[in-house]
Amino acid sequence: MGYFITFEGGEGTGKTTIIEQVKNYLLNLGYEVIVTREPGGIEISEQIRDIILDVKNVKMDYRTEALLYAASRVQHLAEKVIPALEQGKVVLCDRYLDSSLVYQGIARGLGIDKVLNINMFALDHMPDLTLFISARPEICFERLKKSNRTMDRLDLEKKEFHEMVYDGYKQISKMYPERITTIDGEQAVEKVISDALDAIKKLVDKR
Amino acid sequence: MGYFITFEGGEGTGKTTIIEQVKNYLLNLGYEVIVTREPGGIEISEQIRDIILDVKNVKMDYRTEALLYAASRVQHLAEKVIPALEQGKVVLCDRYLDSSLVYQGIARGLGIDKVLNINMFALDHMPDLTLFISARPEICFERLKKSNRTMDRLDLEKKEFHEMVYDGYKQISKMYPERITTIDGEQAVEKVISDALDAIKKLVDKR
Repeated sequence: MGYFITFEGGEGTGKTTIIEQVKNYLLNLGYEVIVTREPGGIEISEQIRDIILDVKNVKMDYRTEALLYAASRVQHLAEKVIPALEQGKVVLCDRYLDSSLVYQGIARGLGIDKVLNINMFALDHMPDLTLFISARPEICFERLKKSNRTMDRLDLEKKEFHEMVYDGYKQISKMYPERITTIDGEQAVEKVISDALDAIKKLVDKR
Repeated sequence: MGYFITFEGGEGTGKTTIIEQVKNYLLNLGYEVIVTREPGGIEISEQIRDIILDVKNVKMDYRTEALLYAASRVQHLAEKVIPALEQGKVVLCDRYLDSSLVYQGIARGLGIDKVLNINMFALDHMPDLTLFISARPEICFERLKKSNRTMDRLDLEKKEFHEMVYDGYKQISKMYPERITTIDGEQAVEKVISDALDAIKKLVDKR
């Protein structure tokens, strides 16, 4: 079995850049690597994602949203992640279960236990390592504004929501200290990357 | 609060006809009645339903399917059923939670407990009465063939699947004897309807 590594943090924390560097690092070590994120090109999960992110769907109940994320996750896991792990590949996944625990469980107020419950199907495939890229929302927002990225329904949430996400990740990190490594995402980008690679190195040195 | 009445059973058991008669009976008693089924014209639930029933989605994991049904159910419940009950209306719903317990929990083999778990959001709004229309699959199939109805992905399942659904409903009926009344759907249609109306009468006479 390969390694399953997930990356977590709010929008604008720099996950994409970090994943790219981790990928290159692992390729240089001779690993086969795939980079993915839910829905990850899986047709069924893409269809589900379209419903979640559709700006017209303002009446969506938070419980519906949580169930749709779980559905997209399970399909992506079954069709893409597990087959790759079974082929011995390293899977780098941008967001996974912790995103739902934080966004739906904490920020939406559904409760961590309830969201864990509906994600139980995915719980038998927990990541070997999760990097939480920690950066305050005001800093992330400035970065997003500079990048001119199109905003979707979730980006447009109020400031307090993003604060709750940030605090939520800190809370979840304490719940899973073995699995989750926190990376200070407010540092210079070179330092963020070298911290991330150190954590990866520690994982692959263990086997 | 109004009454929440659900109708369960395999395809071709005659639920549609029975619901129509129950509706007329209750209208004559002076109740306001709405007839619905998930997704019930709720835009978000319709979008979810389209994914589930799309014949192209043959790779759909059974767990994904179960989560999508739960998502569609919760949205339909929040946007349509609960508001109607709060206005004192009677809601007649073609299929509800028991369908998932039977189809995904038993026939798909996911387990009743797991499917109950992901539907827990809906569990605080259980029906006041559920009518299970019981008829053997071979009889239902003949009826469906005669009706020339277009078949969707679920109708095309193998015969053994429909057998499991039939047995599953009998199992669930024993789990919830207070809530679920079994109606013999193989009788002459007039007798089926009068049995259904007797059960409805018993419910409304209680209050």
